[in-house]
Amino acid sequence: MGDSTRETTDKLDIKFDDKGLVPAIVQDIDSGEILMMAWMNEAALRQTLEVKKATFYSRSRDKMWIKGESSGHVQEVVEVRVDCDQDLVLLKCKSHGPCCHVGYNSCFYRVADADGSLEVVEEKVFDPAKVYK
Amino acid sequence: MGDSTRETTDKLDIKFDDKGLVPAIVQDIDSGEILMMAWMNEAALRQTLEVKKATFYSRSRDKMWIKGESSGHVQEVVEVRVDCDQDLVLLKCKSHGPCCHVGYNSCFYRVADADGSLEVVEEKVFDPAKVYK
Repeated sequence: MGDSTRETTDKLDIKFDDKGLVPAIVQDIDSGEILMMAWMNEAALRQTLEVKKATFYSRSRDKMWIKGESSGHVQEVVEVRVDCDQDLVLLKCKSHGPCCHVGYNSCFYRVADADGSLEVVEEKVFDPAKVYK
Repeated sequence: MGDSTRETTDKLDIKFDDKGLVPAIVQDIDSGEILMMAWMNEAALRQTLEVKKATFYSRSRDKMWIKGESSGHVQEVVEVRVDCDQDLVLLKCKSHGPCCHVGYNSCFYRVADADGSLEVVEEKVFDPAKVYK
């Protein structure tokens, strides 16, 4: 399909990139907070739609992974949305624990300034060394 | 920088992909709604940080573009955030008009079902033919 057809179709037709991947964003359905981004291949998207647990594809490990499989902090998928040209997936989720492996609720814990500096603006909520063993 | 350094540094150090691009998400700072995703090169990111209007890079037209330059629906950037491994940019914006060129407030106007169908769940708020001339 072309982009303009993708905008109006009632069929899921994700525009995967040349590596067969699409970025997927996780949003907390209660707070509206954006929690993380990871990549999906077609199998990860299918499993997410069917099993309703956020599932991604790891480029470094070359395999699918379920968010929370190590930490227990799963993301329960309530709604899967796509954008107009179907090159991004949005998962609206119920969180079961904090999302970011660095120890924050969201991966977006830093604000960038025009001078190229980053400032941490969120509180750390867990110690990764105690959660990922 | 490696990924673990990118997580803790106070320096902006975006992990651009092999085309020199990074996905950027626009979120309405008032409603929390996710409005759109587009791509940035380094120049678009720098201009966004300095001028505070959401600016992207068009792969098809091979040039920078400012959101709203045709429609007037600019996205005024209040905060720029990066995720832990710095491969995604989040723009928290004040909207000046609807965001999606198809006619919706957000590009995420469709929900995907496990059977591969898409359902429109948002209201159309403008007629693109009247806005993009």
